[in-house]
Amino acid sequence: MDELFILKIGGKVIEDQLLLNEALQAFAHQPGYKILIHGGGKRATEVSKLLNIPVQMVNGRRVTDAATLEVAVMVYAGLANKTIVAKLQTLDCNAIGMSGADANSILAHKRPVKDVDYGFAGDVDAVNVTTIQTLLEGSLTPVFCAITHDKKGQLLNTNADTIAMQLATAMAPYYEVSLNFCFEKPGVLLNPADDHSVIPTLNRAQYQQYQADGVITGGMLPKLDNAFEALQKGVKEVRIGDVAAMLEKKGTVLRSL
Amino acid sequence: MDELFILKIGGKVIEDQLLLNEALQAFAHQPGYKILIHGGGKRATEVSKLLNIPVQMVNGRRVTDAATLEVAVMVYAGLANKTIVAKLQTLDCNAIGMSGADANSILAHKRPVKDVDYGFAGDVDAVNVTTIQTLLEGSLTPVFCAITHDKKGQLLNTNADTIAMQLATAMAPYYEVSLNFCFEKPGVLLNPADDHSVIPTLNRAQYQQYQADGVITGGMLPKLDNAFEALQKGVKEVRIGDVAAMLEKKGTVLRSL
Repeated sequence: MDELFILKIGGKVIEDQLLLNEALQAFAHQPGYKILIHGGGKRATEVSKLLNIPVQMVNGRRVTDAATLEVAVMVYAGLANKTIVAKLQTLDCNAIGMSGADANSILAHKRPVKDVDYGFAGDVDAVNVTTIQTLLEGSLTPVFCAITHDKKGQLLNTNADTIAMQLATAMAPYYEVSLNFCFEKPGVLLNPADDHSVIPTLNRAQYQQYQADGVITGGMLPKLDNAFEALQKGVKEVRIGDVAAMLEKKGTVLRSL
Repeated sequence: MDELFILKIGGKVIEDQLLLNEALQAFAHQPGYKILIHGGGKRATEVSKLLNIPVQMVNGRRVTDAATLEVAVMVYAGLANKTIVAKLQTLDCNAIGMSGADANSILAHKRPVKDVDYGFAGDVDAVNVTTIQTLLEGSLTPVFCAITHDKKGQLLNTNADTIAMQLATAMAPYYEVSLNFCFEKPGVLLNPADDHSVIPTLNRAQYQQYQADGVITGGMLPKLDNAFEALQKGVKEVRIGDVAAMLEKKGTVLRSL
C-alpha cells in the first residue's frame, strides 16, 4: 500500500505567519500522497466582532447560528484556505482547496439538538474516498477547511480535528495512513507549563490513567479521543506535536496497546 | 471533439435567490463537460462597508487594496463559491469550487500601475488546461470564482468575464467550447429600456457600428470585447442573455463574421 501523510494544523499555527510558513514548508517537502486540514484561528472571531455578530461558545465549541456560519465559510473556506493554497503553490505543492461540499467529499448532518443547540454544526457521516483518490492520483494535494455539507444545500461548521480523523480512517483501508496533529505545543505534556515534559508515547490505558489523574485535561481530551479512534480504525500512526516535532518525528506518538 | 459548456453567471443573478436557483438548475441539467464561473455580487461591497473598508471604483472596476482583497477572497472564494457548490450538489452536479490558486489553475500577474493603481487586480497569464482536464475527466464540474494567483503567494482579484473568456479560449483547442454569459437582461439590447429589443445575432462589424452609434455602451463593452476575443481564439459559440435565454438557446449569439 502507498503511504498517505495527513497533517492537521491548528488555529494558533495559522495565526502565526512564521509558524504557518514552517508548517507548510514541512508539509510541501513531504514526499508522496498527502492531505492538509486546517482550522480557522481567531480570525473568524475577529470578523464576527467587526460585523457585530456575538460569539457564543458552549463546552469549548462555537455555537454556529446563520450569521456565524457565513463568517466561518468566508474565513475558513475563503481567506484561510486560499491563503494556504497560494502559499503551498509557491512551494511547488499542487494544492487544491476543499470544503466537504466540493466534490461532495465530506457529508455531514446538522447536529441534533439535545441539551445544547449548536446551530449549523455538522457531524460527519461519510468521506467520499473515490473523489479524494481521483485528486491524489491526479497529482493534486487536497487542503481541507473545516466546513462540510449535508447534500441538501446546507453548509455546516465542523471540528477540524474530527475532519482529520474522519479523513484518516476513511483512507486507512487503501493507504498506510499517518495522521499528524500540529499545534503550538511540542506534544502532549505531563505538565502544561513545562514544554520539556512531552509524553513520548501514549497508549489508551495510559491516556485513561492520565485523564483520571487530571494530568490531561481540557481541549486535549477531544483531540486524543479523535486520535485514538483513528488508531483503532486502522490508521497506522498518530503523532501530536509542534512543527519541530513533525519535522524531527518527535512529539507524542500514540500506540494502540 | 467533446463539447464543453461554459457558463458565467453575473453578480445580479447571484444576488437573486430565485434567478440563481434557476441558473444553477439549467447548468446542472446540461449534459457533458461543463464549467461555471461566477461573479460576487453586492455582498463584497456590503461586507466591506460593515468592516469600514472604503470601496473605490475606477472605470467601473473595484480598486483592490489589501483589505478589499481579503473581503473579495472571503466573499467570492468562500461564501459565494461554497454556497453555489452546495446548491449544485443538491442537483447531483458534482461541483468542485476553485480559485485560480487551486491546482494552480489560473496564473495571473498584478496589473502594472499606469494612470491608475488598481491594487491587487490580476491580469491572466495562463490557464492550466491539464489540471482542468483531470477534473473534468474525473467527473467533476469546476466552479470558478474570480480570484487568481501569481504563484508567488499573492492572490489577485480578477474580472469574472475575463476569467470565463480565458478559460474558454484555453480549452478551445481540446473541446468544442460554447461560452455563455448569463446576466439579468435577455440579451444585448438595442434599447436598454426595452427588454424586447434583443439583438439576436451580432458580428464584430455590427458591434463596432453599434458602439460608434452609441447604441451599445458602458459595462456591455468589456463583456463584448471579451466575447469577440473568445470567438476569434477558437471558441465555437458565444451567447449572452438571461437564464431564460440560456434555457431556450435565445439571447444574443455572437458571430465572427
